[in-house]
Amino acid sequence: MALTPLASPLYADLFGDPETAALFSPEAEIAALIEVERALAGAQGALGVIPSEAAAALEAALREARVDPAILASGTGSAGVAVPALVAQLRSALPRAAADYLHFGATSQDIVDTGTMLRAGRALALYETRLEALLGLLVHLARTHRATAMAGRTRGQVSTPVSLGLRLANWALPLARARVALAAQRERLPVQLGGASGDLSVLGERGAHVREAVAHRLGLAPSLPWMTDRAPVRALGQICIDLTSALGKIGADVALMTRSEAGEMRLSSAGGSSTMPQKQNPVRAETLMALARFVAGLAGQLAASGVHAEERDGAAWMGEWLVLPQMFVATGSALETARRLVDTLEPQTDAMTARATGDGGLPLAETLSFALLPHVGRAQAQDLVKRAAADTRTRGTPLVEALRALTDAPLDWDTLGAPQAATEAAARMTDALLAEIDALAAR
Amino acid sequence: MALTPLASPLYADLFGDPETAALFSPEAEIAALIEVERALAGAQGALGVIPSEAAAALEAALREARVDPAILASGTGSAGVAVPALVAQLRSALPRAAADYLHFGATSQDIVDTGTMLRAGRALALYETRLEALLGLLVHLARTHRATAMAGRTRGQVSTPVSLGLRLANWALPLARARVALAAQRERLPVQLGGASGDLSVLGERGAHVREAVAHRLGLAPSLPWMTDRAPVRALGQICIDLTSALGKIGADVALMTRSEAGEMRLSSAGGSSTMPQKQNPVRAETLMALARFVAGLAGQLAASGVHAEERDGAAWMGEWLVLPQMFVATGSALETARRLVDTLEPQTDAMTARATGDGGLPLAETLSFALLPHVGRAQAQDLVKRAAADTRTRGTPLVEALRALTDAPLDWDTLGAPQAATEAAARMTDALLAEIDALAAR
Amino acid sequence: MALTPLASPLYADLFGDPETAALFSPEAEIAALIEVERALAGAQGALGVIPSEAAAALEAALREARVDPAILASGTGSAGVAVPALVAQLRSALPRAAADYLHFGATSQDIVDTGTMLRAGRALALYETRLEALLGLLVHLARTHRATAMAGRTRGQVSTPVSLGLRLANWALPLARARVALAAQRERLPVQLGGASGDLSVLGERGAHVREAVAHRLGLAPSLPWMTDRAPVRALGQICIDLTSALGKIGADVALMTRSEAGEMRLSSAGGSSTMPQKQNPVRAETLMALARFVAGLAGQLAASGVHAEERDGAAWMGEWLVLPQMFVATGSALETARRLVDTLEPQTDAMTARATGDGGLPLAETLSFALLPHVGRAQAQDLVKRAAADTRTRGTPLVEALRALTDAPLDWDTLGAPQAATEAAARMTDALLAEIDALAAR
Amino acid sequence: MALTPLASPLYADLFGDPETAALFSPEAEIAALIEVERALAGAQGALGVIPSEAAAALEAALREARVDPAILASGTGSAGVAVPALVAQLRSALPRAAADYLHFGATSQDIVDTGTMLRAGRALALYETRLEALLGLLVHLARTHRATAMAGRTRGQVSTPVSLGLRLANWALPLARARVALAAQRERLPVQLGGASGDLSVLGERGAHVREAVAHRLGLAPSLPWMTDRAPVRALGQICIDLTSALGKIGADVALMTRSEAGEMRLSSAGGSSTMPQKQNPVRAETLMALARFVAGLAGQLAASGVHAEERDGAAWMGEWLVLPQMFVATGSALETARRLVDTLEPQTDAMTARATGDGGLPLAETLSFALLPHVGRAQAQDLVKRAAADTRTRGTPLVEALRALTDAPLDWDTLGAPQAATEAAARMTDALLAEIDALAAR
Repeated sequence: MALTPLASPLYADLFGDPETAALFSPEAEIAALIEVERALAGAQGALGVIPSEAAAALEAALREARVDPAILASGTGSAGVAVPALVAQLRSALPRAAADYLHFGATSQDIVDTGTMLRAGRALALYETRLEALLGLLVHLARTHRATAMAGRTRGQVSTPVSLGLRLANWALPLARARVALAAQRERLPVQLGGASGDLSVLGERGAHVREAVAHRLGLAPSLPWMTDRAPVRALGQICIDLTSALGKIGADVALMTRSEAGEMRLSSAGGSSTMPQKQNPVRAETLMALARFVAGLAGQLAASGVHAEERDGAAWMGEWLVLPQMFVATGSALETARRLVDTLEPQTDAMTARATGDGGLPLAETLSFALLPHVGRAQAQDLVKRAAADTRTRGTPLVEALRALTDAPLDWDTLGAPQAATEAAARMTDALLAEIDALAAR
Repeated sequence: MALTPLASPLYADLFGDPETAALFSPEAEIAALIEVERALAGAQGALGVIPSEAAAALEAALREARVDPAILASGTGSAGVAVPALVAQLRSALPRAAADYLHFGATSQDIVDTGTMLRAGRALALYETRLEALLGLLVHLARTHRATAMAGRTRGQVSTPVSLGLRLANWALPLARARVALAAQRERLPVQLGGASGDLSVLGERGAHVREAVAHRLGLAPSLPWMTDRAPVRALGQICIDLTSALGKIGADVALMTRSEAGEMRLSSAGGSSTMPQKQNPVRAETLMALARFVAGLAGQLAASGVHAEERDGAAWMGEWLVLPQMFVATGSALETARRLVDTLEPQTDAMTARATGDGGLPLAETLSFALLPHVGRAQAQDLVKRAAADTRTRGTPLVEALRALTDAPLDWDTLGAPQAATEAAARMTDALLAEIDALAAR
Repeated sequence: MALTPLASPLYADLFGDPETAALFSPEAEIAALIEVERALAGAQGALGVIPSEAAAALEAALREARVDPAILASGTGSAGVAVPALVAQLRSALPRAAADYLHFGATSQDIVDTGTMLRAGRALALYETRLEALLGLLVHLARTHRATAMAGRTRGQVSTPVSLGLRLANWALPLARARVALAAQRERLPVQLGGASGDLSVLGERGAHVREAVAHRLGLAPSLPWMTDRAPVRALGQICIDLTSALGKIGADVALMTRSEAGEMRLSSAGGSSTMPQKQNPVRAETLMALARFVAGLAGQLAASGVHAEERDGAAWMGEWLVLPQMFVATGSALETARRLVDTLEPQTDAMTARATGDGGLPLAETLSFALLPHVGRAQAQDLVKRAAADTRTRGTPLVEALRALTDAPLDWDTLGAPQAATEAAARMTDALLAEIDALAAR
Repeated sequence: MALTPLASPLYADLFGDPETAALFSPEAEIAALIEVERALAGAQGALGVIPSEAAAALEAALREARVDPAILASGTGSAGVAVPALVAQLRSALPRAAADYLHFGATSQDIVDTGTMLRAGRALALYETRLEALLGLLVHLARTHRATAMAGRTRGQVSTPVSLGLRLANWALPLARARVALAAQRERLPVQLGGASGDLSVLGERGAHVREAVAHRLGLAPSLPWMTDRAPVRALGQICIDLTSALGKIGADVALMTRSEAGEMRLSSAGGSSTMPQKQNPVRAETLMALARFVAGLAGQLAASGVHAEERDGAAWMGEWLVLPQMFVATGSALETARRLVDTLEPQTDAMTARATGDGGLPLAETLSFALLPHVGRAQAQDLVKRAAADTRTRGTPLVEALRALTDAPLDWDTLGAPQAATEAAARMTDALLAEIDALAAR
């Protein structure tokens, strides 16, 4: 066990996501804070809130500024936030006339929250790219297998025949929806600028203009201060949950499909065992399940950090820091893991079809029951199917044949018994789901 | 301790919300299930999926049908869901020709999930009405106190003077936003109709039309099946969290404002103590905090129920049942509690103003420091203010006077020292927040 | 969905546990509060803290007192706790000389917390009885099947042959341990008596004696006040988690064993489907899983209610009320559900044995590999087994035979190939687990 | 925001705990895994399970073995656990005769779980040392202030006078209890040894002996396999919760005591504000609150990972990895933070005493009311006190004097009005708590 396997050289290939993790590195954090201070100075210079020479000097200096996280540790410890130490450090390298106007009228939370939104935007962009690739794989597979018969399973029991494509399209659709939600959220990431107590008092009447200008420079949405209204933070968490839930389902399904007795899916690079050659451990599937549960738990914590007292609540704010970045990295890791898992899927279509339409066709029981209903009524239909099923179980007569022998209801027995009958509805539903995914992609 | 104080005669006045609870009573559940079966029959009759006479008989019979929950208990226990027993019970009172076509082609989850959305819609409508009333109270109070000086507090420490109105407007804005989100969500509540394994196989090509017609009849949004994609359920939970977080903040702030040593708020009907007459226990404020934490924790559980394996996952589905209704009732209870709390708020404006502008004006330190900055530079400005503050602390000289004596910087000392200076920015920000609330209300 | 399916006539047979729920009914709560007040009066009378006539009158009157919860609702709402209204109500029916000494020197929290421990003790006693019955069933089954071959499964993959008895003994052992922990906890349930601010000031030097006497009268452990140290409450939650985790595992395993393609377990009264006769929905197994997750989530909430500020923290305290009783009832319900599930288990030993020793004996690969190791070294042993396994897979030669043909290592081939070889170790481990269970039962 | 501020150079001084974090570093993990393999080889050699020369060679080689985590990443990714890659790496550097007997008969989980317990034991030892230091500070402070008057506060309202010492002793007692529980838990940390499917089949009849010998060599408790019974893991989490809850309470109380309007506690090194010199941000107090909530949330997750299906459940197991180490490091960090916070506490005893006994002595109302009761009855006693309190509020008459003027009850007015009367009970209770702490320390 590592402090967190999300950031451990040992677990890099199991849970790691270096790209997303890099967005939440100390260096990235400091760079984002500096970026926000720079946009603030630029906006204030342009609006005449601070001298334009000071603003120009700040913009130039901050473009290149780098600060070692370690030298800010002490100041961060005593202030409870990195900004005061960072500002002091930056000021020490600036001419006084510029230094005096760094961080002018802002409070630490303005810089931190805005910096978080900047990095969140980058994480969402990364997810979007990954989602598109993953959706591409899934949609292709679903289309290929739109009519590949597979036993549907409800409550773990074989229910009626569906198609592998339907299962796969049901994996993809929530991800396609999440992609749209994610893109919309990217457009709404709000700037934070409220000053010491949220009234931006130092900036006077020009406060609102500065806020808008800072947002514009950073590509964020203008917003009234949300220092104690953490809905924007929760919205980020919600995206992580929607994604990891959808990915976790893929994991859960793959884990079941690869079970020894099911054998409906093989993985081209599953974890093996040196002494048990029959095993193909579905490690990435399990990882997806573990990450989904982890992010869900953190979501509860994020929600519990939502009550911010008075004008700023240090304890509740720190509560966000302890969970949100992990949610992001875990989500990024789940996206990577899912892509790698889906890449290795090898559907065992013979085993699937055998189970879906085999057992003498027992999974067709529901279809036959409803087909008979208009002719003989519900009670008799079910009774006939039950008797036929008993015959199928004991003597192996195909269910359709066994039923046909019991009734003279004018059903289209050949169609009902034809292989494609079992998957017709599933293929149609698969098409509908894929059409919806296409429509979402076109947004 | 009651099994749940949300539904206990003993705690009815502390946690109870009979209106919301009624939506999640066994009777309401059964009524909603019947309502869905009725819409299904009606839609299927109109589209020729079932005989129109059967449909007419079903619509007529189900309009008045009532079923005692207790007689369904045994069937619910063995099937894990109430629908099969309910359908059997309803059928027993119907002529066979109609009975056979009850619940035609549907699966239990179709009826349960759609019924949940029906009831969720009613809960949201109830919340909306309550939110409007609560917002009315808060906006009125905020407007009244837009310039009532109050000490801002960050990390529990007096920061700079703000206004009571600003605090109140910051209570209201997240609620106004949640109201808009909630109204939008009401429009999106999806129907569920997928049949046994999600491909609606029994309905053949007409499945999609039936689904749309059922949605239309029930006032829900048409939707592809979402049997294993629980984002619509999580979206309901998110509304509950957004609301209870915002209400919990009101509770947290009131609890702090009513503290004996603060004395900035009194409650006209606080819990007292027979032997400690000085107490005014802020019980409803505490209730809001407790409910917010409770709903946040349940949100984590709801998220953790988000991974539904295969075509239906009984355990994950039951996980929702155990938490979502409690989230709804707790949220409704919090709305009621907040209204009752806000109704009893008696701001102690003298105490507020004294703390905001008293202490010789120490809370003005930041304002003065920034006013001096352009004239003497940042370092000297802070040094002067610190020296003046020391004078204020030891000899009681008002801070503005003490500072004036230390510098000949050409500040507008009279304006800086005037009472309204302290709240000017806060009043302006209050107005901006109230304007945003107005704009949201107009949507 | 019911407000909570733990207390709904509709879900009574699925989630209900009337016996445990009765301990957390409003009536039971009031009765427990009265019982504590009575013990307090009795103890104070005996120690001369209050007049002995008053004590005698109180003891007599409170033995029979009944109070309708509904009439306390209003007072509970304003005080945030039921005790003040209850005490007022009880006083109104008492002669003044006795009434004055009711609740003498106590605070509401003393009565509520002590009353909770009383009821917790009864719930634990109930659990203990149920555990004994459940353990009896499991131990009997495990003993019966100590050597019934079953495929072990790790990460969902068949690993090596074990026995059904081993699986069952592994279900039972955590429950046997929890029973011991539970019995120990019952002995430690602490009385709470601290007075208004925790120093029991009204009782003066006799406070400690009163506390001990009250504990003695109620069968609780003497204890210093724990008003803000909620470890005793968390310890109760821990018992619920330990039990529901162990029961949830039974559910998870049964759900997997009953899967259509596994078919290793049948349930004599599973949830069926009218139109899908092949289904045997493992509803009670799913219920156990759902309850385990629910209790785990509530445990996080209970932990989060653990920080109690100052001398009493109303919001944190209410947080406990919202979750602890549900944890208790959910745990009781899980115990009942497990007993009912275990009662219906029908092991399909042929299917088990076939999978464990079938496939030509592939699950024996690990055993054979280690048996060869001392003779040919690890690398060659694995290589030989892999070659033999390939032969088994392609030509169906039993693995032992295929291997024997590849090596002249002097193994005891007959023993290795004998049916009982596959389960020898598992039977031995089963015996060890059962011996440990016996030893725990004897404590 | 860092991926986790528990391990970030930027937040090192706010959340960091390098000592505990070092126990959960990749290097420490690998070292622990090697240590377990070495103990296994040693035990097996001594018992004749593997050749004694192989055992000797393994023990010698593994004493010095070091493996770079990064080279194990790929193998860890595919196997889902680091052990196979580590074993392969170790084998590659060993002579074949020894290499063949490395990891003999064990499964990865044996090594990982036992290694976790080894490291947990070291973390608990570290905590114990820290707890002793912290308890020393708290007990000293509590003893010093056993009779320093302070206003008790229940539900945020001044209740009755207590003493600062009582508050402090109430901080210390749960920690003293947790120390005892922690020490007991250290003695019970179990070895894990079950082999591939939990029946230790490869080791035959000598399995139990090997298990005991390995435990003995590692200083762990012998134990039957607990591969799917995660109670030992939860017990570790419970210690973390008990500690962080107790520490979080210290944080919550300090945050309230340092509030500007309370001013009852100052911090010698609080976080300040450059522009708001009146602020003394209680950063470490907030950190304790944030860590307590974080650990509580993770506890819910740990509980939710408690259901392990079949013989090994990869997803549930990974769930532990994602939370348990963070719980340990957060707890260690909280212990460090608490010590640093307590070190800087500067009680403002004048302010405390003024509030406790000031306001004309209003906080004495309860005491006076109970003192009068035996003489005039409850109703009249309360009425008299209320009238006196009104007099105190309006005219400033000390409450004792005001009451004395209203009644001729023969109370010992001088004693009641003496300063020490207010804290007598609190000092006595403080002594009782300290005596209990002493008794626990002597265990």
